[in-house]
Amino acid sequence: MAHLDLSADVVSLTQQLVDIESVSHHEQEIADAVEAALTSLPHLTVTRRGHTIVARTELGLGERVVVAGHLDTVPLNDNLPSRLEDGVLHGLGSCDMKGGDAVMLKLAADITSPNRDLTFIFYEAEEVDSVHNGLRKLTESDPDLLQADFAILMEPSNASIEAGCQGTMRVDVRTTGERSHSARSWKGVNAIHLAGPVLGRLNDYVARQPEIDGLAFHEGLNATGIRGGVAGNVIPDECVVEVNFRFAPDRSEADAEAFVRDFFDGYDVTVTDMAAGAMPGLDRPAAKAFVEAVGGEVAPKFGWTDVAQFTRLGVPAVNFGPGDPMFAHKQDEHVPTEHIERCERILKEWLA
Amino acid sequence: MAHLDLSADVVSLTQQLVDIESVSHHEQEIADAVEAALTSLPHLTVTRRGHTIVARTELGLGERVVVAGHLDTVPLNDNLPSRLEDGVLHGLGSCDMKGGDAVMLKLAADITSPNRDLTFIFYEAEEVDSVHNGLRKLTESDPDLLQADFAILMEPSNASIEAGCQGTMRVDVRTTGERSHSARSWKGVNAIHLAGPVLGRLNDYVARQPEIDGLAFHEGLNATGIRGGVAGNVIPDECVVEVNFRFAPDRSEADAEAFVRDFFDGYDVTVTDMAAGAMPGLDRPAAKAFVEAVGGEVAPKFGWTDVAQFTRLGVPAVNFGPGDPMFAHKQDEHVPTEHIERCERILKEWLA
Repeated sequence: MAHLDLSADVVSLTQQLVDIESVSHHEQEIADAVEAALTSLPHLTVTRRGHTIVARTELGLGERVVVAGHLDTVPLNDNLPSRLEDGVLHGLGSCDMKGGDAVMLKLAADITSPNRDLTFIFYEAEEVDSVHNGLRKLTESDPDLLQADFAILMEPSNASIEAGCQGTMRVDVRTTGERSHSARSWKGVNAIHLAGPVLGRLNDYVARQPEIDGLAFHEGLNATGIRGGVAGNVIPDECVVEVNFRFAPDRSEADAEAFVRDFFDGYDVTVTDMAAGAMPGLDRPAAKAFVEAVGGEVAPKFGWTDVAQFTRLGVPAVNFGPGDPMFAHKQDEHVPTEHIERCERILKEWLA
Repeated sequence: MAHLDLSADVVSLTQQLVDIESVSHHEQEIADAVEAALTSLPHLTVTRRGHTIVARTELGLGERVVVAGHLDTVPLNDNLPSRLEDGVLHGLGSCDMKGGDAVMLKLAADITSPNRDLTFIFYEAEEVDSVHNGLRKLTESDPDLLQADFAILMEPSNASIEAGCQGTMRVDVRTTGERSHSARSWKGVNAIHLAGPVLGRLNDYVARQPEIDGLAFHEGLNATGIRGGVAGNVIPDECVVEVNFRFAPDRSEADAEAFVRDFFDGYDVTVTDMAAGAMPGLDRPAAKAFVEAVGGEVAPKFGWTDVAQFTRLGVPAVNFGPGDPMFAHKQDEHVPTEHIERCERILKEWLA
């Protein structure tokens, strides 16, 4: 079993985490390592659900802060093992979001007498359909474990605060034709050819970029998958374009669905996944206090993050983590080590 | 093991063959049954290569005729088991081409004293990439087994003669983009969207329909598969459109490739499969004699068939088998029983 050395500095610890491969649905090894490391700390109470680990102080303090991060990554893209070079750590998951996970582990190990009770949540399956999301499952199985006055999600946000988050919705757009032998193709109807205009509409899409609470959001509508074909000599009778709509938090789930159905008017559209966005919520007292402690600009969060889960539970939440989100899910994913160190320093000052 | 009753009538025997599922690469059971049935006939010498069975008379007669058919089918489409209704047998493989296989088995069993030496070839993997084709493999491993003065391929041709065959070529047309997180899609390049114009060109394609030796051929260019996608939240960096070009026999393989490369000019095109067509060849004496014996019109063969393999070996060959090729590879595939009976009768008269 992989072993995590919590006495190492936060950058070395990030590197240890990156080098434990943990593509979504394959988090067993990293979750075992995190659980073992946290269980060794006597001031924390550890609970495990699947590959989601929760560690809490139970000091009866007046306030409780949740710090959360997911353990999984998108698929490998020839970008492991990690490589540390000129103050930058490269590798799958370095940015999204094992730098944040390492900060959480350091806070858990080093802050034995916090000024607020702390809940650390390391969870599985954030990078796949929300039905698998470990934090979402926890809101159903153990909502008490998520109760807090404020939550910090350590998703990459350039070590500064990103507020709100865009929603995400997935649909299958399906075309239906009729099979025939490809040697007599004029006797069938080619469903892949019918999908040409679907891709045409996506190519013509112009993104809406609304300003909300002073933050400029940016929507996106993209094919993330396409499949069709029966055999090399058969005119295919079905083609499915998998589409992901990222929508600004001023749209409800119903609004988002109506937009997509209208956009693909005339086609068979099936919703396969939906997660609402979260409004920035910077007017809430707990959020205001943290923004003042960190200082600096607040930016909008483009990616969907689990701040939306907390919003749903009535817990104010922001994104604050190391790494430039522009490099998440890219082959050259990386994180500046100074981001990781800055997040560790700010949170230790605020919580210790 | 499935058992074939060669004393049954040719329609019952077709039904027995249809009910032995034999999708390409899964021909073990049907080949075992055919081999066992042929081995029980003392006037034939049986040879097996993989799931390809050859049975020959060796009477030292002045002329030899090959009769050949493949044992495999395209994938299941909710169209098994077989169903005999109002003189029509329905089911996967009934048309393409177990009616022909059944005729071959009846000829093999019943013509113990032929007027020409006979070679029956039942072969595997015709419905997939030509590299797997059992007859093609036989031309390499045992070319002597294919030597003959004339060959009849029992591919569906409405129980009349279809001459020549179109060639078939497969290419992958690949688009390349750049991955990014789908929440910040404007930072990547979507390879599936880039494939939109590829499908657009296919939608604009106009088929050439040349007349050759008095027969009207009909080309076709179709996507038979499409794939792309990394994960539901990643802008995909690759999309592959699998395209099948069916070309008239007046084009060489080189001409066909040049046409397709020009058609997809500007895209990355990889040839994955190629099989040349065959000119009708109705001017050859052996072909003429068979045409006269059968009588009726001669039509062009749109589908690629293994007449091209024989053409390559210098053996004149035609397609002559039960079933309307328009129903090959369709869910409601079927064969009129009178076609099967007509083929059996004509070949028995010509060969016995």
